[in-house]
Amino acid sequence: MARVVVDVMLKPEILDPQGQAVQRALPRLGFDGITDVRQGKRFELELEGPVDDAALARIREMAESFLANTVIEDFTVRVEESAEGTTAGAAS
Amino acid sequence: MARVVVDVMLKPEILDPQGQAVQRALPRLGFDGITDVRQGKRFELELEGPVDDAALARIREMAESFLANTVIEDFTVRVEESAEGTTAGAAS
Repeated sequence: MARVVVDVMLKPEILDPQGQAVQRALPRLGFDGITDVRQGKRFELELEGPVDDAALARIREMAESFLANTVIEDFTVRVEESAEGTTAGAAS
Repeated sequence: MARVVVDVMLKPEILDPQGQAVQRALPRLGFDGITDVRQGKRFELELEGPVDDAALARIREMAESFLANTVIEDFTVRVEESAEGTTAGAAS
């Protein structure tokens, strides 16, 4: 079982009200030094079978036609080596 | 200017109706072989100043108290080396 991650973010030229709301809230909450926040979506797909070039091409097609609205969003597809990130903050 | 990415995903034991809706739609759209989909949020934070341990600790605190609902969500914090992913699908 392999995991492929598709990140979908608004294009840089598209206004991101969610991200702006987060950014404006941060100083009030005591977090300074953050100049920009963008908020997007992360899809974790569990594949049966190997993650070869054909599978990745299929997922890219899927992301383009279905997961992202490519008029306003960019996406990236990548294979996740393990389920854990390097600096995982596993909250209780 | 450095970029830190905070990924927020529902905990594995929490039902994810958004992800399930995506997963159920995929076979109808001609995409087979995907056994599970989870959908979460991705925050891209632009920091002024260096991304040292202190900054990362601060961001982890921020993610825990503000970006994620740690009752139902897990988060990971990581520094993004460059703005581009390795398999970036820059859609038109």
